[in-house]
Amino acid sequence: MLSAASHDFLADLIGKTPADRALWLEALTHGSTGAERDYQRLEFLGDRVLGMVIAEWLYQLESADEGRLSQRLNALVSRATCAKVARAIGLADHIQLGKQAREDGGRDSDNILGDVMEALIGASFVSEGFEPTRDLIRRLWTDMVGGKTGQAKHPKSALQEWAAGNRRKTPEYRLVERSGPDHAARFTVAVSVGGVGEAEATGASLREAETLAATAFMQRFG
Amino acid sequence: MLSAASHDFLADLIGKTPADRALWLEALTHGSTGAERDYQRLEFLGDRVLGMVIAEWLYQLESADEGRLSQRLNALVSRATCAKVARAIGLADHIQLGKQAREDGGRDSDNILGDVMEALIGASFVSEGFEPTRDLIRRLWTDMVGGKTGQAKHPKSALQEWAAGNRRKTPEYRLVERSGPDHAARFTVAVSVGGVGEAEATGASLREAETLAATAFMQRFG
Repeated sequence: MLSAASHDFLADLIGKTPADRALWLEALTHGSTGAERDYQRLEFLGDRVLGMVIAEWLYQLESADEGRLSQRLNALVSRATCAKVARAIGLADHIQLGKQAREDGGRDSDNILGDVMEALIGASFVSEGFEPTRDLIRRLWTDMVGGKTGQAKHPKSALQEWAAGNRRKTPEYRLVERSGPDHAARFTVAVSVGGVGEAEATGASLREAETLAATAFMQRFG
Repeated sequence: MLSAASHDFLADLIGKTPADRALWLEALTHGSTGAERDYQRLEFLGDRVLGMVIAEWLYQLESADEGRLSQRLNALVSRATCAKVARAIGLADHIQLGKQAREDGGRDSDNILGDVMEALIGASFVSEGFEPTRDLIRRLWTDMVGGKTGQAKHPKSALQEWAAGNRRKTPEYRLVERSGPDHAARFTVAVSVGGVGEAEATGASLREAETLAATAFMQRFG
């Protein structure tokens, strides 16, 4: 049974009365209850909906290459991030757990919180469709996407800032070698900072080689 | 430049004139061309769109548990499957490759074909939106989803069929032990076939334990 409090919680979340109560109950139900349906199938679906919506968002927001987009995406859809969002909306009180799981602190488990967060996204997608679910995710993830989650400083920026902070000249990158066939080309790049030193690295693209060279430089001199 | 032939290919694919030619060209362009934009960012996006659309489809089609859904999903969105779909629509001729990559047979590479297939899905999502892209994927993946891709026979069905084929009684499952706290319960199940033997296995749910027991039985007696 969906309690009145959980019903209100869901209505707040999706901005309307939840029509399919059995579906939402399923999304909130952990296997430990012994109920016939638990959140796992909806979590399977919600996980992919979340991944796609965040991927689209990052694609629109950032001009970064695929590797950096993937890195941010992985951080933004991680179980820890999902659990953080779940805590921010007070989801824990509405999770249906078996007695023992409750006593064992299941309500504060990152695994369970993250799973149920994804299951709710799955339920929203099934009952409300794509656009409202995209809006819901964008509302819930605004702080994470706007913030630093998965947002490690790019090695080239880090090196640039380090050089400026140490009153050195701007780092200079130069292509040392390009080898291999076109579709499997390898680029070797050297980066130097005047009066400090030089580091070299090889990658599958000029950009990758520069990034790796900056990383190598910072490891050696930073 | 998008050739006239590629333009027609895309128009056939999406059922209308491709409006944003630069976007579609990007989706067809491999890094080996040295072009400023290649397919990688669109592939990043298309990969997640494909995953979500197939996940939704499987969720609707099958009442299987999350583990089986994931197994089928992974097979259906694998690079090999994407490459198979790419070959079926004659995508290879339209991929823009550098000279060396062409000569090295890049057009027949599963990696490149699969990547470009995903990038086209990404481009469709960016330019046409969610619903038309879902329709496109469902059209292209019909045979794969309807067929046996990722569709290993369930161990319990396999055992059932084996027993019938060997004129044995129906396999019988019984719960041997349930242990652990509710949220981390362990179930041990034994399955027996009269006149043949018995096998035991432990899992996180009754269903999982039964599945593993059936697998163990078939390994020992099948």
